[in-house]
This record gives sequence, C-alpha cells and structure tokens, in this order.
Amino acid sequence: MSDENTPGVGHNIAADRLRSIVERIERIDEEVKALRSDQKDIFSEAKSAGYDVKVLRTLIRIRKQEPAELEEQEKLLDVYRRALGM
Amino acid sequence: MSDENTPGVGHNIAADRLRSIVERIERIDEEVKALRSDQKDIFSEAKSAGYDVKVLRTLIRIRKQEPAELEEQEKLLDVYRRALGM
Repeated sequence: MSDENTPGVGHNIAADRLRSIVERIERIDEEVKALRSDQKDIFSEAKSAGYDVKVLRTLIRIRKQEPAELEEQEKLLDVYRRALGM
Repeated sequence: MSDENTPGVGHNIAADRLRSIVERIERIDEEVKALRSDQKDIFSEAKSAGYDVKVLRTLIRIRKQEPAELEEQEKLLDVYRRALGM
C-alpha cells in the first residue's frame, strides 16, 4: 500500500509522511470538535436547570485566574467604572 | 461530604449541581488543552521534517471544504486578484 518501500520514489516518501502529519492533525481536530459538542450539551443542561450560561462562562473564566491577578483586575475595573461614572 | 442529602439546605443542593457543571466544563477544557498541545507537537515535528507550517494549515483548511465550495472560492479569489492587478 505504501510507496515508502518502493525504491526511487523519493517524492512519495514525503507524501506518506505528509499524509500521516495531516491525518493526525485532523484526527485531533475531530476529537476537539466532539469535546466542544459535549460542553455545549453541558451548557444546555445548565440552562435547563435554570443557570445563566453567560454568568457560568464568566465564573469559569474567573476560576482560571490567579487570586492576586483577579483582585488586581477587579480593583482596576472598579477604578475604570468610577472614571466613567458607572 | 455532599450537602445534597442534608434536608433543608436547598441553596446547597443548587451549589452541588453548579459545582458538577463547572467541573465537567473545566475537565473538558483541560482535555482540549492537552489535544492542542499534541497538535503543536505534530506541527513541530512537521517543521523539523522540512514542511512549511503555514502551508500545512492552509492545506488542512482546504481539505475541510466541499470541492464545489472550494472551486467557487478559488474562482472568486482569482477574480479579486485580477481586479487588484495582483
């Protein structure tokens, strides 16, 4: 099946390598797609249970941050809001 | 451990549900992160093997498109290039 063992077809050796690279990247893309679909289902479940999806996303983003960084950003946000009279 | 079985703490029942939702979303985020890291390694391998990573990404994008859609877009791109004298 593979041209890799056929002598003299250097071009096809590279094509096999290229195909392997491309297919591995694509397989991972498919796995990521499936995982994102699972996440979508979880958000739907959350919405059905009465949670606000936008607030959920904010909550998850906040949980990713370091407490010190988060505190600094919340302080700055407060300063900016006051500056704009919000 | 869970407050879910403690009577009268309706607030905590919701907290347990919320925690479950958030943790499942976060677990998937971690899995996606690991997969993206695997892809990065494959692109590095490709680069080391002499492939152009930018062209590889274009190739993968092209493979995702329907042949008819792709042909239409390539025709239009040609028209736009001519229009700009490229």
